[in-house]
Amino acid sequence: MIDLRSDTVTQPTPAMRQVIADAPVGDDVLGDDPTVNELEETVAELLGKEAAVYMPSGTMTNQVALRIHTEPGDEIILESQAHIYFYEAGGPAALSGVMCKLITGDRGIFTAADLQAALRPWNEHYPRTKLVCLENTHNRGGGSIFPLSEIRAIAQVCQANNLRLHLDGARFWNACIATGITEAEYANPFDTVSVCFSKGLGAPVGSALVGSKELMQRARRFRKMFGGGMRQAGIIAAGALYALKHQRDRLTDDHAHAQRLAQGLQAIDGISVDLDTVVTNLVYFHTPPTLPATVLANELAAVGVGVLPTAAHTLRAVTNLMVDQADIDTALEQIAAVMGQLRSQPQTPNPATTPTVAQY
Amino acid sequence: MIDLRSDTVTQPTPAMRQVIADAPVGDDVLGDDPTVNELEETVAELLGKEAAVYMPSGTMTNQVALRIHTEPGDEIILESQAHIYFYEAGGPAALSGVMCKLITGDRGIFTAADLQAALRPWNEHYPRTKLVCLENTHNRGGGSIFPLSEIRAIAQVCQANNLRLHLDGARFWNACIATGITEAEYANPFDTVSVCFSKGLGAPVGSALVGSKELMQRARRFRKMFGGGMRQAGIIAAGALYALKHQRDRLTDDHAHAQRLAQGLQAIDGISVDLDTVVTNLVYFHTPPTLPATVLANELAAVGVGVLPTAAHTLRAVTNLMVDQADIDTALEQIAAVMGQLRSQPQTPNPATTPTVAQY
Amino acid sequence: MIDLRSDTVTQPTPAMRQVIADAPVGDDVLGDDPTVNELEETVAELLGKEAAVYMPSGTMTNQVALRIHTEPGDEIILESQAHIYFYEAGGPAALSGVMCKLITGDRGIFTAADLQAALRPWNEHYPRTKLVCLENTHNRGGGSIFPLSEIRAIAQVCQANNLRLHLDGARFWNACIATGITEAEYANPFDTVSVCFSKGLGAPVGSALVGSKELMQRARRFRKMFGGGMRQAGIIAAGALYALKHQRDRLTDDHAHAQRLAQGLQAIDGISVDLDTVVTNLVYFHTPPTLPATVLANELAAVGVGVLPTAAHTLRAVTNLMVDQADIDTALEQIAAVMGQLRSQPQTPNPATTPTVAQY
Amino acid sequence: MIDLRSDTVTQPTPAMRQVIADAPVGDDVLGDDPTVNELEETVAELLGKEAAVYMPSGTMTNQVALRIHTEPGDEIILESQAHIYFYEAGGPAALSGVMCKLITGDRGIFTAADLQAALRPWNEHYPRTKLVCLENTHNRGGGSIFPLSEIRAIAQVCQANNLRLHLDGARFWNACIATGITEAEYANPFDTVSVCFSKGLGAPVGSALVGSKELMQRARRFRKMFGGGMRQAGIIAAGALYALKHQRDRLTDDHAHAQRLAQGLQAIDGISVDLDTVVTNLVYFHTPPTLPATVLANELAAVGVGVLPTAAHTLRAVTNLMVDQADIDTALEQIAAVMGQLRSQPQTPNPATTPTVAQY
Repeated sequence: MIDLRSDTVTQPTPAMRQVIADAPVGDDVLGDDPTVNELEETVAELLGKEAAVYMPSGTMTNQVALRIHTEPGDEIILESQAHIYFYEAGGPAALSGVMCKLITGDRGIFTAADLQAALRPWNEHYPRTKLVCLENTHNRGGGSIFPLSEIRAIAQVCQANNLRLHLDGARFWNACIATGITEAEYANPFDTVSVCFSKGLGAPVGSALVGSKELMQRARRFRKMFGGGMRQAGIIAAGALYALKHQRDRLTDDHAHAQRLAQGLQAIDGISVDLDTVVTNLVYFHTPPTLPATVLANELAAVGVGVLPTAAHTLRAVTNLMVDQADIDTALEQIAAVMGQLRSQPQTPNPATTPTVAQY
Repeated sequence: MIDLRSDTVTQPTPAMRQVIADAPVGDDVLGDDPTVNELEETVAELLGKEAAVYMPSGTMTNQVALRIHTEPGDEIILESQAHIYFYEAGGPAALSGVMCKLITGDRGIFTAADLQAALRPWNEHYPRTKLVCLENTHNRGGGSIFPLSEIRAIAQVCQANNLRLHLDGARFWNACIATGITEAEYANPFDTVSVCFSKGLGAPVGSALVGSKELMQRARRFRKMFGGGMRQAGIIAAGALYALKHQRDRLTDDHAHAQRLAQGLQAIDGISVDLDTVVTNLVYFHTPPTLPATVLANELAAVGVGVLPTAAHTLRAVTNLMVDQADIDTALEQIAAVMGQLRSQPQTPNPATTPTVAQY
Repeated sequence: MIDLRSDTVTQPTPAMRQVIADAPVGDDVLGDDPTVNELEETVAELLGKEAAVYMPSGTMTNQVALRIHTEPGDEIILESQAHIYFYEAGGPAALSGVMCKLITGDRGIFTAADLQAALRPWNEHYPRTKLVCLENTHNRGGGSIFPLSEIRAIAQVCQANNLRLHLDGARFWNACIATGITEAEYANPFDTVSVCFSKGLGAPVGSALVGSKELMQRARRFRKMFGGGMRQAGIIAAGALYALKHQRDRLTDDHAHAQRLAQGLQAIDGISVDLDTVVTNLVYFHTPPTLPATVLANELAAVGVGVLPTAAHTLRAVTNLMVDQADIDTALEQIAAVMGQLRSQPQTPNPATTPTVAQY
Repeated sequence: MIDLRSDTVTQPTPAMRQVIADAPVGDDVLGDDPTVNELEETVAELLGKEAAVYMPSGTMTNQVALRIHTEPGDEIILESQAHIYFYEAGGPAALSGVMCKLITGDRGIFTAADLQAALRPWNEHYPRTKLVCLENTHNRGGGSIFPLSEIRAIAQVCQANNLRLHLDGARFWNACIATGITEAEYANPFDTVSVCFSKGLGAPVGSALVGSKELMQRARRFRKMFGGGMRQAGIIAAGALYALKHQRDRLTDDHAHAQRLAQGLQAIDGISVDLDTVVTNLVYFHTPPTLPATVLANELAAVGVGVLPTAAHTLRAVTNLMVDQADIDTALEQIAAVMGQLRSQPQTPNPATTPTVAQY
């Protein structure tokens, strides 16, 4: 199967598996795991922050970030399609007691002026605004890139208003690779950054939160509370460390494959793609009104091509470590063939099958 | 002073004060206060529900309602300008741990179709949708009235999707008086309704939550937790009971005064009012771009007319028990005079003075 | 009926009712209520603190205090029978997310050494200890008085360990009257003090939290969130103000009546009282093994004497504003008569009727 | 180093590492990881429950269990030294909003009668009692075993009072091995059981919660919220599965080693052990008043023996997979030698070095 559903489906390579099998480990709850320690130091240094904390998921690194920056009754500001608001099971309200104020951006990106307009003078009737969260690249925005200049302008508004700034960097590595901006430069305006090792990078498990020593000490306490303190975690940290060292540069391949895929899709009769929106490894494409996205996805699955319906007539394909250029070409051939068949048998749109699928 | 800032400024009349002074009381925490008991029975019967619980504020009745219908991690659906979302200090997230999903309505009113579109299939990444909250009349919507037919359609969507339905009825009495629909008929589609005695009705303190016996027993427990269990509460319940009996019908006067005020304002050079939006006791009016709302409000305060700036060029006047028709005419004369003076001395708009004022 | 169940049953006197009827009021949510403002200033000055906030109940003043001093995951230290732990519906965990560490004291009183022993070095596995709460007088401790010297020693331990100190002063006035220590002196070691107007003082409704301006500003925000923001609250604040001025000194009468009652009870065959434990207005007394407390309470209710069973063979009588010396003597006669009858008809103990009654 | 500090320090064996390296994996968030699926099915079947959910830690399985059984304001009943109360960073209050009612047991074990006595009639002042948690074996109780007969009696009290029953089975395997009772029989009285793979079993990471399908579906949702959804988690689940199959029976060795160690310690001059308390793999032993536990621990660390001071004059040794019989004998020789030296140089007790160490 050529699995383009998500970059979370990536599996450890044989080389990574060997590193995992050989990893020196210890009890990380006691701070004794050398592999976890090395990973945390490596990530902190790469992003130019004082410290990092390894956790089992990106949801945890994001939710711990909310917890360390806020108290219940505070308000956080996010883009209206943010993963933190959409896909983290209500964690902001349930775990941190914070209200979400949403700014409608352009493919997930908003401006410093948008932020300024969302602020208001103090009044005891209001929740207290305390934190702004950005997402880069933006998942539901189509893998869109948050411009560094805008981030810096937003950070200035935050400083002027005593607000903290957090980045959900689940696909931060893709933004760096696509722009050529270093991780440290891109992370600099933020108080905390969450990064994932289990998406494009291809490690099996884990994310890290980075920031100042003081904030990370606080994060460590809430990681324990949320149940993220693991014992011989070096076993999985080894995969993350390997991915960081050996599988980061190759994200350029994923981006090139996404371009190739998008252009190929655009050429298929009945499929439409906005090529301007394909900037990293996510490709969103559309079916005609007579063809539900779920029907196409099911037909493609039957011929070994995995894609994800995300709206009534929209599908998502994500290039990743498991898929090379030949796979892209094969996938395009299959999609063209299936489309040819389907278009000769017009479908009735069926709103009942409208999918709403959560994919980090 | 002719105080049109809010209907919350209404004061007890001499007759009400006498009733308060004479009220039989007991320890309501032990269920021994006859006046509170009479008030609760009266309100429950009026709204056609099994039981009612008296509480010190509308914020508490709303927040207790959220608490009895949900658990942390659930999602509630509200209109984007709802008081519960805007003005209750972050209570939904802090006290009940619920996420707010906002529907942008028309002056606070949305449709059953809007609600249907906001629902989604179950997925463990999502908060679980559990409750829909309406507001009638709608404060930030300009005292707009939620049509009963639409409420019924919304209630059907709720039933089909296992959702509870709550009404923030802070100005519920105004909706009933304005439409001629009985309280019981209007309350019927809801699981719980919150009503206030301290706004148009003119009682000094208090609100009630009504619903089934089972839900109200649960509400009583959370009232205690939130600190709303009061001892000889009959002292204030007496004012509420008096208001309910003697000051409800007179809301027609407030509505007539609002019409008179709106028409008078429209005739003043430089003031604009959308007469179609004045349907109960709230009148929103606008100043020209050269005249900040705060400047007008300050000048009017100096001559004894209280109005509330609510946006850069918008002000709010609320007719109420303290203001009779002669007061409306006097206020109009003063506003016309002040506008004449101000328009001869053009102002520079100053965004820094943009007010954002919370008024229930 | 001679109601000795609690001092919460006290009703407003005619003079207090007149003051209530005449009270100048305003919208307290806007800070416009002159009576509430006077009450808050009076209480703050009396306790020697910068500011006070009026709220509808002692549960709310206590729970707001926890909220302003802590964040979720913190630990508070209390005596094992503390009202905050026992009778506030789980508020500490539900509203503030704090763990309760209990110290078993002597009739509600513990020592600085007990506190020191309850502390522990920092470790991320532990909740973070942040607040110590005392109760004076101590309700379930029998109205016992917390010695000022011990409070000062406890405050020193708190300062040395960066802990805040709060007083649940539901019956603080009784402690001051009984010891002759001024309110300001007794309140001095605490960061915040909660006081009630609706118990011994005899006002119908309300409590206040006092502390620094900064803390009270924070308290005001959470009062709003919890639903304690009331409109023309001067109506009830007037009763509290009257009680503070005119019904505080007379607590000496309640204490004298409690002594008279205790000594009289001790003289009744079959009743036992530990006279050393009667130091303010609470009298706990005991029945023999053959006579369940509930049986005696029911018999006494039938002859017009209200007392409260609090354990299988223990009852509570609380002297209060509604009961004068002659009532005490009458009550003693009735109790003696009922006991005479009951002891001639021995009862079978019935554990199933063991009461556990919550009374503040 | 002979590391007896905890059984959490156990490292994967070469055979387990090979299984890990070869594990088939998938995206477990999508339910696609065959190794996780096999582990969950294996554990559920072994404990005789419908379903299981794999999570990164025992703290998470416990905290998710609290969350699925309760709502904020509820009360849970635990033994006074329970790990859930002591060592989970305040999670019960912070994550689930529940109050903890503690029963003081005997080495962590309490009776059905103790539970019955801790219950009380319903009253809105009280938190609502909802869940009872046991711990078997009991960590701070010295690895003590909860008798099945007592568990069954407790379960009957729970059923009669509509309470749920959860087991913190961090060392459940030890209880089964020591008593010969099957996992299914021991787990039967519980609604949910939490088991760990990373202690005596020797897997690097992870725990599971087991229970009914309905409860586990609910658990899966909160696992996601808490950040416990992992991607290719088969990498670590493979270690857990291997441990379950191949390293469970050998816990008898740990228990035999603990006996050997305890008897050897008792024979050393100056060391005392209560042999009756050594029933599984934990050995608590004591130093004389002149010898602080920390001093002995430090001296032993210097000669390559790791033990853990847990009180001023108490240390803990935990036999585990990394330690064979020869290691026990070597450790005993070293302890005897160090004690000989130390006793010839009497120490001054120093309360400042009193350790309070958290070890799961």
